[in-house]
Amino acid sequence: MNLQEIASIINANFNAENVEITGMNTLQDACSSELSFVSNSKYVKDIQNTQAAAVIVDAKTKEYVPENCVALVVDAPYWEMAKLSKYFAPNIEDDSLPEAKVGNGSIVSPKAELANGAIIGKNCTILAHSYIGTNAVVGDNTIIYPSVIVYRDCKIGSDCIIHANTTIGADGFGFATNPQGEHKKIYQNGNVVIEDDVEIGSNTCVDRAVFGSTRIKKGVRIDNLVQIGHNCEIGEYSVFVAQSGSAGSTKLGRNVVVGGQSAFAGHLEIAPFSTFAARSGITKNITESGKTFAGFPLMDHKLWLKLQIKIARLLK
Amino acid sequence: MNLQEIASIINANFNAENVEITGMNTLQDACSSELSFVSNSKYVKDIQNTQAAAVIVDAKTKEYVPENCVALVVDAPYWEMAKLSKYFAPNIEDDSLPEAKVGNGSIVSPKAELANGAIIGKNCTILAHSYIGTNAVVGDNTIIYPSVIVYRDCKIGSDCIIHANTTIGADGFGFATNPQGEHKKIYQNGNVVIEDDVEIGSNTCVDRAVFGSTRIKKGVRIDNLVQIGHNCEIGEYSVFVAQSGSAGSTKLGRNVVVGGQSAFAGHLEIAPFSTFAARSGITKNITESGKTFAGFPLMDHKLWLKLQIKIARLLK
Amino acid sequence: MNLQEIASIINANFNAENVEITGMNTLQDACSSELSFVSNSKYVKDIQNTQAAAVIVDAKTKEYVPENCVALVVDAPYWEMAKLSKYFAPNIEDDSLPEAKVGNGSIVSPKAELANGAIIGKNCTILAHSYIGTNAVVGDNTIIYPSVIVYRDCKIGSDCIIHANTTIGADGFGFATNPQGEHKKIYQNGNVVIEDDVEIGSNTCVDRAVFGSTRIKKGVRIDNLVQIGHNCEIGEYSVFVAQSGSAGSTKLGRNVVVGGQSAFAGHLEIAPFSTFAARSGITKNITESGKTFAGFPLMDHKLWLKLQIKIARLLK
Repeated sequence: MNLQEIASIINANFNAENVEITGMNTLQDACSSELSFVSNSKYVKDIQNTQAAAVIVDAKTKEYVPENCVALVVDAPYWEMAKLSKYFAPNIEDDSLPEAKVGNGSIVSPKAELANGAIIGKNCTILAHSYIGTNAVVGDNTIIYPSVIVYRDCKIGSDCIIHANTTIGADGFGFATNPQGEHKKIYQNGNVVIEDDVEIGSNTCVDRAVFGSTRIKKGVRIDNLVQIGHNCEIGEYSVFVAQSGSAGSTKLGRNVVVGGQSAFAGHLEIAPFSTFAARSGITKNITESGKTFAGFPLMDHKLWLKLQIKIARLLK
Repeated sequence: MNLQEIASIINANFNAENVEITGMNTLQDACSSELSFVSNSKYVKDIQNTQAAAVIVDAKTKEYVPENCVALVVDAPYWEMAKLSKYFAPNIEDDSLPEAKVGNGSIVSPKAELANGAIIGKNCTILAHSYIGTNAVVGDNTIIYPSVIVYRDCKIGSDCIIHANTTIGADGFGFATNPQGEHKKIYQNGNVVIEDDVEIGSNTCVDRAVFGSTRIKKGVRIDNLVQIGHNCEIGEYSVFVAQSGSAGSTKLGRNVVVGGQSAFAGHLEIAPFSTFAARSGITKNITESGKTFAGFPLMDHKLWLKLQIKIARLLK
Repeated sequence: MNLQEIASIINANFNAENVEITGMNTLQDACSSELSFVSNSKYVKDIQNTQAAAVIVDAKTKEYVPENCVALVVDAPYWEMAKLSKYFAPNIEDDSLPEAKVGNGSIVSPKAELANGAIIGKNCTILAHSYIGTNAVVGDNTIIYPSVIVYRDCKIGSDCIIHANTTIGADGFGFATNPQGEHKKIYQNGNVVIEDDVEIGSNTCVDRAVFGSTRIKKGVRIDNLVQIGHNCEIGEYSVFVAQSGSAGSTKLGRNVVVGGQSAFAGHLEIAPFSTFAARSGITKNITESGKTFAGFPLMDHKLWLKLQIKIARLLK
């Protein structure tokens, strides 16, 4: 799709060079053939360094757009971005691609489904009712239990184990809302990358990124019924206990331990070797590594224990 | 089944006209060929206006039953209702029905299962390992991702997206318990109705109604690992963030926003445009619209923030 | 595998009789052909009564090992036990076993998968996309809804109902961690036993035991999105409401009621007829039966209600 067509879809004035646009991305990550957007004034500072070919902005943000970048001015940039995201969404499956390739020594159940373009490494076990989507990749020696669903373009490393009924790469929870309260889907055109030696429990969800990748790094252990939001990055050897989760774009350092039913708000940075007791609620960055926390609001674990004693004294 | 047979199953005296009974329902919703019951003294007030052909009551409630309605008197109405519910449960699948119909332009994976009597609209995508039950209906342009399971009689609208491993229409959590502590299943003979333009994440559960419908209205967005109990009604454009849920029979107005890991008790009414911060616990009706809440017990969000500061001061 | 080979894998000195070892187990449950281990000083007291053929211990624990038991001395017993667990793990599927047997009157969807060695009782309904693993057993009259995944060796009783997308017998969350923060999987070589008349909701997880069985006793009712950790024992007629869970090795008496989003820590004992309000967090044994609790930290339910009033007063 070219810029002229894009401008037409979102009803923006357009009188610049009509270049081909290959995708959408954030201001920071967009390359020179990509489109970006500014939906929140706190990102205005990122405009001047963007490599994007064009950005969708509102009238008052237009002045910050650098000379080498086309400004597409609209009333509601986030809504228009949502509208455009659909045009960059690939088909769910693509029959024009070659049949899936399966490496030597791998066993694939006849009741599994490998979409065209999928690639399975060596010595894998792919059990019944699992689904490996278009262009998805599975490394060597990996076990995919029954009814594991891997959406298109996702990558799973070697020596991984994914347990039954887990979903890898479903759409992140993204939509724009207009003043009438209606929602428009933001198509999630990124993927999930799971590195080597990762084990994920059953009925867990790892959502695909809106742009780029949700990343589960080497050696991570994720239990059952865990939610990992779009664009999260989970550091090496981190551990999520059952029914915990993270909202989108939160980044954990290595060896973070997340207790059962704990949850992170979105867009946080968590220092390595942090430990969170069960049912912690984490809403702020953790900058110092190696500490243990509890509670919601979150506090030092020992302080939380002390506070519970103080609270209990209110009854006296 | 006729009233005589019903009376015999539950060991109730019977000497009225022996009419055919077509189903069971609440006092309020029962039609004149249906059976109802009173298991709780707070529903006694609803007896006089019921249209039901008969009601199961205990001896002390019998006097409130109106003249045009047969009273079936038993010691434990709820237990007997549970016992009868099985007789009104349809078969899970019904091979006597015609094969599923699929509209023009729809793509159905050969590894999907469409039960007899199912109807798929136009331009749908029904992926591998999904299951559309007996008499279930899917509207136009809807995408059913792999391993989505839709139980019999449920209806999904047009322009919907249901992500992998989500379950629509499994039985609500209903049973009677006797004095010995044993449970008897209450068959959930209602369904789920999902209106148009709804997106539901992965590994989420929307339970079918015991009577009538669990209803997800137009434009709703539900994230991953969410629980919607039987007979809930979720208002237009409402939003459930991951790992939140609602117990049965709660009714939300439009554009209610439910934060991650929040939960509603059952039988509540929630005003439109209410917002609940993450991990809210809602146990009472919300009557004023447009307000923001937090905490468990629930309170005004700003008050909750203030309270956390006061609580932290206990440490000093 | 014999003791000599085992000693060689974990680099332990060995100069005892070289007996064949049939499996691994706890000190208490190991039989005379099994291997055990001591990874925590609090279990030292159990060494003297073990029947195990050999135990993996560290140098300072060696002196407690009784004469009739071989001590295999290593630096990190838990890590070495994890390493060995892999050798005792059976194949996920075993084609050398006979084809699955299905009892009279049972209906098995052609799109279900019954692994070799599985046994299905009489009058069962096994729906599409479900999976009954190697040597798994299903009793009579049981309904297995679509996409229910039952791992190998698990046993499901008669008159049970398991709803869609539920996972029975996936690996418990077990691993050892070395000083570098790397994890090594502890293979979960036990199983799950579900007794008769149990109903389990959709998208729920019951993990298999590391040794022995995770047990769901007669008449239990489990709702949707519930987590039952490895080696738990859930007493007769107990009830788990949606999104609740238990960490590993917790044992509940009969008729325990667990409110929505509640959770148990691991290794607890809970008295029969205990009731836990929604979102309870249980971290200690409950020794007196028939009481009602709430909160996290847990307390008597009435006290919790009172405490909330006291807390709210902090705002004044």
